[in-house]
Amino acid sequence: MGGNQGSPQSDRFADDPAFAVHEGGKLTVTPNRSIDSIADLALTYTPGVARVSSAIAAEPELARRFTWAPGVVAVVSDGSAVLGLGDIGPAASLPVMEGKACLFSEFAGLSAVPIVLSTNDVDEIVAAVEAIAPSFGGINLEDISAPRCFEIEARLRDRLDIPVMHDDQHGTAIVVLAALRNAAKVVGRELGGLRVVVSGAGAAGVACTKILLGAGVGDIAVADSQGVLHAGRTGLTPTKQWLVENTNRAGYAGTMIGALEGADVYLGLSGGSVPESAIASMAPGCIVFSLANPIPEVDPEMAKKYAAVVATGRSDLPNQINNVLAFPGVFRGAIDAGARSITEEMKLAAAAAIADVVGDDLRPDYVVPSPLDRRVAAAVADAVGACAREQGITV
Amino acid sequence: MGGNQGSPQSDRFADDPAFAVHEGGKLTVTPNRSIDSIADLALTYTPGVARVSSAIAAEPELARRFTWAPGVVAVVSDGSAVLGLGDIGPAASLPVMEGKACLFSEFAGLSAVPIVLSTNDVDEIVAAVEAIAPSFGGINLEDISAPRCFEIEARLRDRLDIPVMHDDQHGTAIVVLAALRNAAKVVGRELGGLRVVVSGAGAAGVACTKILLGAGVGDIAVADSQGVLHAGRTGLTPTKQWLVENTNRAGYAGTMIGALEGADVYLGLSGGSVPESAIASMAPGCIVFSLANPIPEVDPEMAKKYAAVVATGRSDLPNQINNVLAFPGVFRGAIDAGARSITEEMKLAAAAAIADVVGDDLRPDYVVPSPLDRRVAAAVADAVGACAREQGITV
Repeated sequence: MGGNQGSPQSDRFADDPAFAVHEGGKLTVTPNRSIDSIADLALTYTPGVARVSSAIAAEPELARRFTWAPGVVAVVSDGSAVLGLGDIGPAASLPVMEGKACLFSEFAGLSAVPIVLSTNDVDEIVAAVEAIAPSFGGINLEDISAPRCFEIEARLRDRLDIPVMHDDQHGTAIVVLAALRNAAKVVGRELGGLRVVVSGAGAAGVACTKILLGAGVGDIAVADSQGVLHAGRTGLTPTKQWLVENTNRAGYAGTMIGALEGADVYLGLSGGSVPESAIASMAPGCIVFSLANPIPEVDPEMAKKYAAVVATGRSDLPNQINNVLAFPGVFRGAIDAGARSITEEMKLAAAAAIADVVGDDLRPDYVVPSPLDRRVAAAVADAVGACAREQGITV
Repeated sequence: MGGNQGSPQSDRFADDPAFAVHEGGKLTVTPNRSIDSIADLALTYTPGVARVSSAIAAEPELARRFTWAPGVVAVVSDGSAVLGLGDIGPAASLPVMEGKACLFSEFAGLSAVPIVLSTNDVDEIVAAVEAIAPSFGGINLEDISAPRCFEIEARLRDRLDIPVMHDDQHGTAIVVLAALRNAAKVVGRELGGLRVVVSGAGAAGVACTKILLGAGVGDIAVADSQGVLHAGRTGLTPTKQWLVENTNRAGYAGTMIGALEGADVYLGLSGGSVPESAIASMAPGCIVFSLANPIPEVDPEMAKKYAAVVATGRSDLPNQINNVLAFPGVFRGAIDAGARSITEEMKLAAAAAIADVVGDDLRPDYVVPSPLDRRVAAAVADAVGACAREQGITV
């Protein structure tokens, strides 16, 4: 592999520590007890296991107690929209899904299994996930391209009685709302009074818009690459049509840049680059969340000249909008409560819990907790579980 | 749950230690490294993981090095033919699949993930397993009822370039052949000279018959519940038709009991009960493998009056025919060699390796190693891997 150097296995990748971290994969499935005797074998496997299986066959609800499935999340992807890399296929997406599984374990103590799929077909993906669903307690959809991701999630939510969440949509949306709640506090504004411009109508843009609407933000303009979505646009997907009908009260029909004039919040989920003049045209005390990674749409140093609060997706800057603040606690809370789905109310509760962890330490450069803050997942799980029980959607 | 006693959770199941072993499930997915810093997070997940995924997208063969998939076996079942319990469905079968995954880890150091399916439809099962296959390095099919198991395995073998094996067929067959090789040695016979009666034409019966034919046993009569399979039988499945065409040289058309007269080997894979007179009618120095569990078809104490070698499926008796002697080493060897399938030759090599572990300790009550003998999986893996490389079927 590595030419004629001494250690051919490692040569090509030795300069980048990421490869060493991923070598051999990042996960192991381990039995909870070892098998040291014929008696152990007879309890773990035949004949003892037959008594456990018989009991579950007679009383299906015993599966929650005597199998691992309720505590296992499948991290499912077809590799079609991976990070900034696009459609790289299942095998190349697997390191990302393994990483996600590591985060489920690390932050929520949940087992998670990466499931990468050899098909991009919506029907086939839905059928495959439905087929394997009895093996799992939750389905985290990941890095599936829009607009297929909307239909896949909707159909699986409809068919399965376990939590299903497309994290690129809702994980991002929950953390964005948490950050915006706190940013609004910093500038002394109410969510309902903010005028927001969302750049990007993909998975994250749509979900962020929906959760902001759900949280009471009244005036949102959403732009795709053709400009702001408005009633005059034709040939839209059902999702974009929904956005036309539920956003852009003013009926603005221009560009995203134009919409920024006088706006209170810029939410960048699109990539590309926003000129300084556009940020300068926003309202005084504005809020800029520029989440493209690794290069934010708005240069964070420049943004600070105009904005009261700046957040990005970058780990080397303050206010990192990182999904890991949401998904571990959301699934942990939903699973522990026996929730049959993840509702809009549970997502709002998760966002509030994340925002509340910041508490009295709130500052312009600390509107969301650190991704490593171990208090977050527990607080989110408590809030999500309590909400599920209140809604009466638990088993 | 348990009425009004002090510890309601455990009351109902406290008397049976099997339930304690299965409580909460028997497996955990664990990250190989912990995440203690932002730097760890940036290597395990974004942005570091993007470089690993990019490298695999450019060079797909790097997935073998930088993902966990090559070392992970999916233990796949629809719960339709579980142990002696029959069609108990996916949830109730899960403790068995978890147990199997424990054995993969314990005996072969392989990660294994139980995948139980919400469908019994052959097309749907094949499609689902094909869809999730990029997540795994091998597919162990388990407890799927005949005749569907034959078609499912054949189609998946055809479509996937990773090892696929239905263990109820081939795991059993490999260990039966290993035991028969050694039993024949005990009685000083060659495999080719033995007349064998196989009781049962389900998954195990068919696979045992095929491997015995492949190992050179020339004269085998296979019986289902209607008697010995012969050319006069009508309405047979394709698999039974194949047996008609490849077994029963003498064209015997009677009952299984009748066929035992003068036979050298009885192989019971059917359940039910065989009368003493039938065993008494077998040839002198005969061999009785009675594998129904927990109650062998032939009472082992009675069998010893007539047979030179007796084997059962029971862990409390000598000569236990236990699949765990085969499948961990078969998958370990195939996976380590990068084998694209598990061939007949690899199964024969596995059987020879198991038989050879017994070596000079061979006795009538020690024709197969103990299921706990740690030498077995390593020996099987070496033999299977060497065979795969010889056959040129490795990546």
